[in-house]
Amino acid sequence: MKINENYRNLKESYLFSTISRKVSEYQKEHPDAKLIRLGIGDVTIPLCGAAVEAMKAACDEMGRKDSFHGYGPEQGYDFLRESVQGYYRQKGVSLGLDEIFISDGAKSDLGNILDLFGADNRVLIPDPVYPVYVDTNIMAGREIIYLDANMENGFLPLPDPGVPADIIYLCSPNNPTGAVYNREQLRAWVDYATAQNAVILFDAAYEAFISDPSLPESIMEIEGADRCAIEFCSFSKTAGFTGTRCGYTIVPKNLVFDGMKLNSMWLRRQTTKFNGVPYIVQRGAAAVFTPEGLKQCKEAVDYYRENARIMCEAFQEVGIEYIGGKNSPYVWIRCPNGMGSWEYFDYLLHELNVVGTPGEGFGKNGEGYLRLTAFGDRDNTIEAMNRIRNSMKK
Amino acid sequence: MKINENYRNLKESYLFSTISRKVSEYQKEHPDAKLIRLGIGDVTIPLCGAAVEAMKAACDEMGRKDSFHGYGPEQGYDFLRESVQGYYRQKGVSLGLDEIFISDGAKSDLGNILDLFGADNRVLIPDPVYPVYVDTNIMAGREIIYLDANMENGFLPLPDPGVPADIIYLCSPNNPTGAVYNREQLRAWVDYATAQNAVILFDAAYEAFISDPSLPESIMEIEGADRCAIEFCSFSKTAGFTGTRCGYTIVPKNLVFDGMKLNSMWLRRQTTKFNGVPYIVQRGAAAVFTPEGLKQCKEAVDYYRENARIMCEAFQEVGIEYIGGKNSPYVWIRCPNGMGSWEYFDYLLHELNVVGTPGEGFGKNGEGYLRLTAFGDRDNTIEAMNRIRNSMKK
Repeated sequence: MKINENYRNLKESYLFSTISRKVSEYQKEHPDAKLIRLGIGDVTIPLCGAAVEAMKAACDEMGRKDSFHGYGPEQGYDFLRESVQGYYRQKGVSLGLDEIFISDGAKSDLGNILDLFGADNRVLIPDPVYPVYVDTNIMAGREIIYLDANMENGFLPLPDPGVPADIIYLCSPNNPTGAVYNREQLRAWVDYATAQNAVILFDAAYEAFISDPSLPESIMEIEGADRCAIEFCSFSKTAGFTGTRCGYTIVPKNLVFDGMKLNSMWLRRQTTKFNGVPYIVQRGAAAVFTPEGLKQCKEAVDYYRENARIMCEAFQEVGIEYIGGKNSPYVWIRCPNGMGSWEYFDYLLHELNVVGTPGEGFGKNGEGYLRLTAFGDRDNTIEAMNRIRNSMKK
Repeated sequence: MKINENYRNLKESYLFSTISRKVSEYQKEHPDAKLIRLGIGDVTIPLCGAAVEAMKAACDEMGRKDSFHGYGPEQGYDFLRESVQGYYRQKGVSLGLDEIFISDGAKSDLGNILDLFGADNRVLIPDPVYPVYVDTNIMAGREIIYLDANMENGFLPLPDPGVPADIIYLCSPNNPTGAVYNREQLRAWVDYATAQNAVILFDAAYEAFISDPSLPESIMEIEGADRCAIEFCSFSKTAGFTGTRCGYTIVPKNLVFDGMKLNSMWLRRQTTKFNGVPYIVQRGAAAVFTPEGLKQCKEAVDYYRENARIMCEAFQEVGIEYIGGKNSPYVWIRCPNGMGSWEYFDYLLHELNVVGTPGEGFGKNGEGYLRLTAFGDRDNTIEAMNRIRNSMKK
């Protein structure tokens, strides 16, 4: 048997393991240090009550013969797809039920969607970037072209008509930078993709953090996106589903390449290689769209937003350059005094007992930056900012 | 963007849609007919009480800040992997925890595992077969060689040393035929795979139905299998998890091809394209291994086994040739009077109001056969067998 040789080209990802090692070494040497972790992208507010109650009721249903659910539709139950459809209707986006595929999270579908594309496509990926976009394409042996995101373009690079591309990754609000594309910028991407006959893979996992009504929450708000874009979304950050696993993928029926409908191809892929999200979890996700669920999720998002505001305020005050934090749970800061990513990471860990994520781990343009997340506790967030404030005043 | 051209080679699967159309047409014309469905492979006994209670408790945990679970390990929680490890220990198979990967079902991993293999491998697939093995390889453009399973070889084909293969699919107890390989037969496959430097993908989804202690429940019981085989298993049929989605995949650390460890490749694949099974579901699956859970699952499996026994007894009595039904939930019958698969399907539907699955839908060697499942109600199963008995006595 011959292995997939492309796996040899994967670089070992040392980012989170190195962070973890450095943190545990420090903790061992300083057992009394009160570390504040603002590095990881996991949430801290528990699952909303509406989802918990709906899932418990669904567990009971599964235990009774008359209400038991066996194999469900691979693309998700209509009750949940209708909720997603209604959510998009509020954004002014009209979707057919058969354009909505319930997934076990954006990460899975962002990887699996690549099954539909040939190996000989050029992939355009902004740098810095969520490493999954890169690794999944290396696994398939595709050529990757990086697009520089930096402070000069506000970490929101625009297309270069001279650079050809077939598959384009966009993430807005962005992980790791927190930058958000406006309507005109997304329009430029849709126009470019249309001209190139390219497909945009749009990661909208953080859309719920957008509070500025002028900013698009979905690429489908842009005319023509239904002929060039697939959108990936998740309940992870908005409803605390990081450990409960549910998301959805929008594959418009108007997406046609080489005479093949991507919607039909994806349906075929999913019915062949996937058996749907647990009934119980889909009931929990549907509860997120009830009035009670929406209220609870808004409270959680508002809590994280306030954390982000507190962080931005502190950086403003001490003169640390940053972006994000406004319509995003991520704050992307320029390491002060010309420090490198790891240098500042070590400083924060050793001197202030605050854990961030070195920007360099997200690509070469991340060097000199650090990512902090708003998903922590309020008290810890305030305390971390006070430590940074005090250190800068010295 | 260039699509994956291999998708054009997929044949539309009309099997279950044709069955569904024929059944609903008949039902429409005969609204009073009491149809008995023994066609589909879904279970009818609800989720065991131990799993329901464990999942409800886990829902509560998820709703409290102090016991909330966010992102979990992609390969599954240790509490569940340890339970699987213990289950294999009872079979005399010693597994490392890091050889056990919790999945959202055998179907997903049977498809996704192919990411690890090059496109230029020859795939050996028995016919008749679970269509997913075929379609997932067509999607990747691999050459498929079929191996004839038929009444002459008891639907348990053995390897032909003259036929080269790189990837080998085995399913035992078999879907659709219910045939089960014995130890010597599996040894022949392990020897062949070793000689060919091939990998065996062993689908053990129905292992819990084996009651004959001389039959292997896992290919890992065969010496040397840890150097040539990957095993896929599921809670779907043993614990009623078809709509709850959990399974596990065994990737031994001794599996090395082209100098690459498949275990490390799979871990990399899963951490890149998967985010693990919901915490709640893993808690439910772990409850299956508690004394109470084991007892409840055994009761369910025994119930289905008794259905299968009732079916086999009836076929014996009326002289319909069959295999399976003994260590398997499937009974594979030769259509009487030389009828074709669809001819007998129509006869059963129209004359006896019993729904089966035409064997031809599983491959050319299925022509002339029909699959019935033991997953129905007891009363319905008895009634269906009485109808067949009476019709044969006419």
